[in-house]
Amino acid sequence: MIPANLIAPTFDPGSVWLVGAGPGDPGLLTLHAAHALNQADIVLHDALVSAEILSLAPHAVLEAAGKRALGESTPQLRINQRLIQLARQGLRVVRLKGGDPLVFGRGGEEALALVAAGIPFRIVPGISAGIGGTAAAGIPVTHRGLARSVAFATGHDASGELTDIDWASLARGAEVLVLYMAHRQIGAIAERLMAAGRSPAEEVALISDASTNRQSVRVTTLRDAGSAAREVPVGSPVLIVIGPVVALRSMLGEWQQVAPMQVRAEVAQERAKG
Amino acid sequence: MIPANLIAPTFDPGSVWLVGAGPGDPGLLTLHAAHALNQADIVLHDALVSAEILSLAPHAVLEAAGKRALGESTPQLRINQRLIQLARQGLRVVRLKGGDPLVFGRGGEEALALVAAGIPFRIVPGISAGIGGTAAAGIPVTHRGLARSVAFATGHDASGELTDIDWASLARGAEVLVLYMAHRQIGAIAERLMAAGRSPAEEVALISDASTNRQSVRVTTLRDAGSAAREVPVGSPVLIVIGPVVALRSMLGEWQQVAPMQVRAEVAQERAKG
Repeated sequence: MIPANLIAPTFDPGSVWLVGAGPGDPGLLTLHAAHALNQADIVLHDALVSAEILSLAPHAVLEAAGKRALGESTPQLRINQRLIQLARQGLRVVRLKGGDPLVFGRGGEEALALVAAGIPFRIVPGISAGIGGTAAAGIPVTHRGLARSVAFATGHDASGELTDIDWASLARGAEVLVLYMAHRQIGAIAERLMAAGRSPAEEVALISDASTNRQSVRVTTLRDAGSAAREVPVGSPVLIVIGPVVALRSMLGEWQQVAPMQVRAEVAQERAKG
Repeated sequence: MIPANLIAPTFDPGSVWLVGAGPGDPGLLTLHAAHALNQADIVLHDALVSAEILSLAPHAVLEAAGKRALGESTPQLRINQRLIQLARQGLRVVRLKGGDPLVFGRGGEEALALVAAGIPFRIVPGISAGIGGTAAAGIPVTHRGLARSVAFATGHDASGELTDIDWASLARGAEVLVLYMAHRQIGAIAERLMAAGRSPAEEVALISDASTNRQSVRVTTLRDAGSAAREVPVGSPVLIVIGPVVALRSMLGEWQQVAPMQVRAEVAQERAKG
């Protein structure tokens, strides 16, 4: 599962690994993540993690524990309790999340719950969409002469309301803004950014299904970002990038290779059935 | 080199893959990165990439192209030209960088140079130290109730001077600040942040050699950050985290597993000799 000359740390029974699955391309899993999936007895996964990636856990029971903006959701407290219960059964438990577990992923809350229960855990970082998804779209989040600061922020808080952060200061301090879960709030956020001095003509990229074969990138402006976001199909994870680096996309696109890794079809299908 | 049921995209001769090596732990390489190293004919690598990680490129010529704050440096223009020259020889060229190629890694500049020369390239994202290094130190960069925005910034610009960004706005807009290459500027940055209203008692973590067996974490305050940074040994890459999430480290530490993947010693040694 990992290169033959590497020795992986032991995944002990009764412990929980909080694992980032990256933005979508299975090739963006880390070696630790691939090892953890291969060793896992059970994988408690977010709804957004693909069947392809889940097929890399051949010995594990798969259990959905997702929380999505629309549709069914599992309260965080129940997820925490389930992780503790499974670890106490002596299982090797993977908690698998899209992106990185600690970048708007609530991995910190799960880790604190495990600590309180006396359960050993490991955090396996993942490629966050803000870095790997932007790269797949041909947008460098930093670039000398264009951006020496980039801010990552979430568009809504637990209640679904616009996040109560100082958007005006963020507009002035961060040359690039990368917004997670901001699909439905981008109109309101854009207004605040323009009021703080960002140009209405500034370029904005809306990236959906980043790094997968279904990836779609819409480039618009701050003025039109709200209406452009309403045209993105519901259900796709959307990442929003605002800043001068968006312009680099048109220069890089032609020569950039982006094919994801593929799981052999028969393996992925079998796993999805089971 | 990658799980047997995955099909990797072809690494074509005459193309350049700009690959992130992650913060240090070989287990934080992505599957794409491990595949690229395994296939590479030549690896043009930064000085900070370890012999352990380089040992994962068994068929490649290794060539150092690093740029460090102290010591020898290779001008960016010469690196760009070397990449073009090697690709035109029909080689599979890996440009290997610590962290992620586009997060203060100048991968965007290299990609633009390749585009201008008509050379196909791929960007292989890496775990950036700001995400994977902080996780290894037990510091979640976001945490519900503590941080819904995090800014990544670089401490100095190309000339070595303090980065000319609006530190006061960043201080007010970003609940967490993650600073790269800010080891020698942190005193000046801390002054600006305090002048903008951040508390002198706010916790600051200085993380060196993040995610490796040599990782060291110093927790200090904004008031004392400048003097604390002077005690970090010269030559280690240092990441600085400022914000309320630093306090979580003391709660997570005891139960967190962090052992990196190890390269079998004989392999790493042989590669270092060759």
